[in-house]
Amino acid sequence: MSFIATPQFLHFPEALPLQSGASIRDYQLAFETYGQLNADRSNAVLVCHALNASHHVAGVYAGQDKSEGWWNNMIGPGKSVDTNRFFVIGVNNLGSCFGSTGPMHPHPDTGQVYGADFPVVTVEDWVNAQARLLDRLGITQLAAVLGGSLGGMQALSWTLQYPERVRHAVVVASAPNLTAENIAFNEVARRAIVTDPDFHGGHFYQHGVIPKRGLRIARMIGHITYLSDDVMNEKFGRQLRQRVMDKTTSEGAAANPAPVPTQGAGAYLYSTQDIEFQIESYLRYQGDKFSEYFDANTYLLITRALDYFDPARAHGGNLTQALARATAKFLLVSFTTDWRFSPKRSREIVKALLDNRRDVSYAEIDAPHGHDAFLLDDARYMGVVSSYFDSIEKELA
Amino acid sequence: MSFIATPQFLHFPEALPLQSGASIRDYQLAFETYGQLNADRSNAVLVCHALNASHHVAGVYAGQDKSEGWWNNMIGPGKSVDTNRFFVIGVNNLGSCFGSTGPMHPHPDTGQVYGADFPVVTVEDWVNAQARLLDRLGITQLAAVLGGSLGGMQALSWTLQYPERVRHAVVVASAPNLTAENIAFNEVARRAIVTDPDFHGGHFYQHGVIPKRGLRIARMIGHITYLSDDVMNEKFGRQLRQRVMDKTTSEGAAANPAPVPTQGAGAYLYSTQDIEFQIESYLRYQGDKFSEYFDANTYLLITRALDYFDPARAHGGNLTQALARATAKFLLVSFTTDWRFSPKRSREIVKALLDNRRDVSYAEIDAPHGHDAFLLDDARYMGVVSSYFDSIEKELA
Repeated sequence: MSFIATPQFLHFPEALPLQSGASIRDYQLAFETYGQLNADRSNAVLVCHALNASHHVAGVYAGQDKSEGWWNNMIGPGKSVDTNRFFVIGVNNLGSCFGSTGPMHPHPDTGQVYGADFPVVTVEDWVNAQARLLDRLGITQLAAVLGGSLGGMQALSWTLQYPERVRHAVVVASAPNLTAENIAFNEVARRAIVTDPDFHGGHFYQHGVIPKRGLRIARMIGHITYLSDDVMNEKFGRQLRQRVMDKTTSEGAAANPAPVPTQGAGAYLYSTQDIEFQIESYLRYQGDKFSEYFDANTYLLITRALDYFDPARAHGGNLTQALARATAKFLLVSFTTDWRFSPKRSREIVKALLDNRRDVSYAEIDAPHGHDAFLLDDARYMGVVSSYFDSIEKELA
Repeated sequence: MSFIATPQFLHFPEALPLQSGASIRDYQLAFETYGQLNADRSNAVLVCHALNASHHVAGVYAGQDKSEGWWNNMIGPGKSVDTNRFFVIGVNNLGSCFGSTGPMHPHPDTGQVYGADFPVVTVEDWVNAQARLLDRLGITQLAAVLGGSLGGMQALSWTLQYPERVRHAVVVASAPNLTAENIAFNEVARRAIVTDPDFHGGHFYQHGVIPKRGLRIARMIGHITYLSDDVMNEKFGRQLRQRVMDKTTSEGAAANPAPVPTQGAGAYLYSTQDIEFQIESYLRYQGDKFSEYFDANTYLLITRALDYFDPARAHGGNLTQALARATAKFLLVSFTTDWRFSPKRSREIVKALLDNRRDVSYAEIDAPHGHDAFLLDDARYMGVVSSYFDSIEKELA
């Protein structure tokens, strides 16, 4: 049984200066809160989201049983991040397509949909926007900021941009910046979108079309990098797609008019364009689904925010120097089979924090699922987060 | 100084039955030979090519100094595979786009370009076509068959389809079949091509267009998987693209009218569509170049041949049983940082051969370059191949 979540919206008229030099004004942020803010306003936990997630972190929407938030296994009453004890805030980032102002909304000056003219936003810009939201909610200091993947980058950035406002940061399956390979995968996905004839330079809204071909390819690439080779072999291996026998040629089907799925013992189709293997079917399905709901300009913006994040850059690449500003306590979590943001990258953050004599806990979870593990149930992972939040609560008391 | 290579062509009127049940007739194979066939015709070495290579394995074409064959570092007079001692044959596979009959050629029945109707060809079909070529060249038995990646699959398949015709097989950076992840990358590349509006179901030739968008994406994905994360970080890291200063806004450029490249110390562009990082520039360049010369239907055919190869399949997945037919001696080579065809996959082949008490040598080369290492110079790698061919030659004497 999940609790009922209700999205909320706040409008921010004043201009938010962005890292690029541009600014954005008259924007809206969508957010949700779970649990109760305590009297001294010390139990707030901010959850930052990754690429295609949103402010809907936990619970379900009224009348929609299957609408669990994306971290519903981690966050809720009695869960690792216990909403009976913490006041949890989920916020949708600027430029996203799930309720906060994004490329599909009108520019306040022109009334025209932003499209490709939506300003480039960075992790640091999102953190600034989140800080303004906390101001409006009357929260001066967070008990913790929590995020996985790109969300972990925001959590880390909070400790650098607003060190005095964060007591703990929980950075899961993240990295201090993207590797060349990470950027490369992002770039291929972006090229697939931008070169889709239906993209129209990012102004496809006016043409009444959606660059679905590009979005599908982008999502397929993404999915490959979220999973480990091992888990893909275990889930799909070289299994052939289940076939529906052709009634016009199969005697078996003629005797049984309902389509009869036949198992992979069957022969190859010998086709370059039809689905032959189960993994192909899975990827096409994921791509199709994604292209129905995700905004193409948002995809470009969010992958670029990933590319740009690099707190060590202003310190000549020295991460230890970059993290010297952080005063929070940290929990870092990584997963052994995550090749997108490998344990090595989390260890770089751990090392830089230890170099600065910061208080750091680090858990490297032996999970088979690759990067996706940060969203999945794993007893040890949930236990580590649970213990950490127990210790945070003890500090509150 | 490279020697001069000359492509040759043979026409095969008789139908070649294919694994799919289809057949192909009146086809042509392009090939090259280097060195001299000895009197007892025992020193022939067949080289099988991978995805985008061809029969042009070594040497240069007359008057084209930069036209080195793709394995020119390995094969030639005095090289690891010494053409002063061996008669080396490179052959372009059926369905390719470099001289042998492929999708851009006319079907002999209709005179219409095959396009998407070119029959699906497999590793086994290629080996059968290569065997017919050897028949025409009067070669009953090969001293060795040699290949890397998909070429290694052909070398392995030779030992199973024609055990009596192969004395040695050299299988480099290969695998007994593709993993789900390998198939997944192939599938994304294929979808990018097939969903390009210029693909026209594979019959784009009649429309006077080329699905370049899809080919570019396919090649970009390929390139990421050919390189290791380490070598990408070393070559590109997070380097920004070199910029050409804009004359209209730069005083420096006004003083010096030639474009002045400025190094990456500069600021981010904050753009989602322009090139920001060096790795993006590299990938776009590789994609553009590839889309100028590679055939889209060939890409589909060759990636499918990769997907389908699985000699253990007819033995319930038991590779040891599958390789029992092989009587050749083997050299297997893998590269530590190759995550496309990892050492683990080569070791599966080694184990299955040892289970059958076959004569196997195995070298796992510690090279940083990923899958691409099989095409690159590496003293230990070249030394291993050189020693192995020395021992082959001793058997000849």
